[in-house]
Formats: sequence, structure tokens, C-alpha cells
Amino acid sequence: MKINDPKTHAEVMAVFARYEQALISNDVVVLDQLFWQSEHTIRYGVGENLYGVDEILAFRNARPSAGLERSLSRTVITTYGNDFATASTLFSRGSAPGKTGRQMQTWVRMAEGWRVVAAHVSAIDTP
Amino acid sequence: MKINDPKTHAEVMAVFARYEQALISNDVVVLDQLFWQSEHTIRYGVGENLYGVDEILAFRNARPSAGLERSLSRTVITTYGNDFATASTLFSRGSAPGKTGRQMQTWVRMAEGWRVVAAHVSAIDTP
Repeated sequence: MKINDPKTHAEVMAVFARYEQALISNDVVVLDQLFWQSEHTIRYGVGENLYGVDEILAFRNARPSAGLERSLSRTVITTYGNDFATASTLFSRGSAPGKTGRQMQTWVRMAEGWRVVAAHVSAIDTP
Repeated sequence: MKINDPKTHAEVMAVFARYEQALISNDVVVLDQLFWQSEHTIRYGVGENLYGVDEILAFRNARPSAGLERSLSRTVITTYGNDFATASTLFSRGSAPGKTGRQMQTWVRMAEGWRVVAAHVSAIDTP
């Protein structure tokens, strides 16, 4: 299995950047589009456990849109073959000093394009 | 892409169960074996961010071996094609009442077998 094929890696880098831009601007349409529209999609958030795209969309729509700006660090995207990838990053927010956020996503190339099939976000005291 | 092909799903169920048994018995040899031996492997733990298998192995070897028993709930394993899977589960420990653990893993079938390539574990107040 080819790890980090350059073309595949560049594709996931681009879609990851698109997701990040949508996140900090609370562009719910793009966020929803980039999550796999499936009952199997799971998102563990900072304070909630969401099973299936319906729960994920409901959470997005109820989320306050202020204070989403953040800085990423130690971002690593790894691709496996041409259709699978993981994206892991730390993040910090000015509104949460002393905390380190961690976001991990699994991306799959579906017929409709690259989609997040599973995601886990959490925050810990900065180690 | 075939989602949850029965044979593939059964394989991942089996390796997931093997991992869980190794975790609660602190069988470091099996845990290490089931993580991809790569600099790309990432594990975000309850209190630490580990990049590369060397950091992951060092953490395992330094970990206290007591109190690892846990109960799983809402475990969902989803397979994508024949070589890729996500495994998500909640867990609770008698030693941590009021807390819900969340564990999310991405599994890839490498030449050497199914391996965890990325994992994220966190704990939140039970919602």
C-alpha cells in the first residue's frame, strides 16, 4: 500500500484546508457537505458524542458561531493508497488559554468526493 | 465502495476484541504489535499527544498496569472496502465515576495484518 502518494496527499491537504476554513467561519453548508451523509458517521466532540449524520447536523445548526478562530500546530495528514487518509492536528484558541485541542479525522474518498467518516475532538490541559 | 462487507467487518471485530483484551490486561507486546510500526502513527491519549510509534511504545512501557478494566458501550465498527476501518466506542471505569471515555481508532490492513494507524482517546463528564 502506497503511503503518502503525493497526488493523493495534496488532495487531502486541500480538502482539509477547506474544512478548516469552513469551521472557523462557521460555514455550516460546507461542514455538512464534507461529512459523510450516513448513519455510520460518528463525531465525538469536546462535550458530546454524536452518532449518525443527523445528530451531527443538528449539533452544527445549534452551535454558537462566535469564537471559533483557532491556531493549528503539529498537523499531520497521512494517506493510505488512493482513497483513505487520517488527519490529526493540535489547536489552541485565545479564548481557552492553557488548553490544547486535539482533532483527529478519518477521510474516505466516496463517489461524491472526500468525506469525513469519523472525527474526534477533545481538549486537555496543555502538557 | 462496499461498506461493512461481512467478511471484512468480522476480521476487524476480531482484531478489535484482541486489542481490547490486551489493553485491559496491559499486554504490551500485543498492543505494540497491533499499532502500525511507523513514524506516521499518532495516538492522542487522555493526557498526552504521541507522534510516531517510538513515543507510543515509550508511553506503554511507562504506564501503570493497574485499574485498566473498563466497560464498553455504543461500539461501532465500520469498514470501507476491504482494507480500511474505523472503530469507535465509549467506555467507563469504576475508578472514574461520572466520566465517559471515548476511543476512536483507524485501522488499515497492512502487509503484516490489520494495524491501528491513528487513535484518539479522551474523557469527558458524562453528558
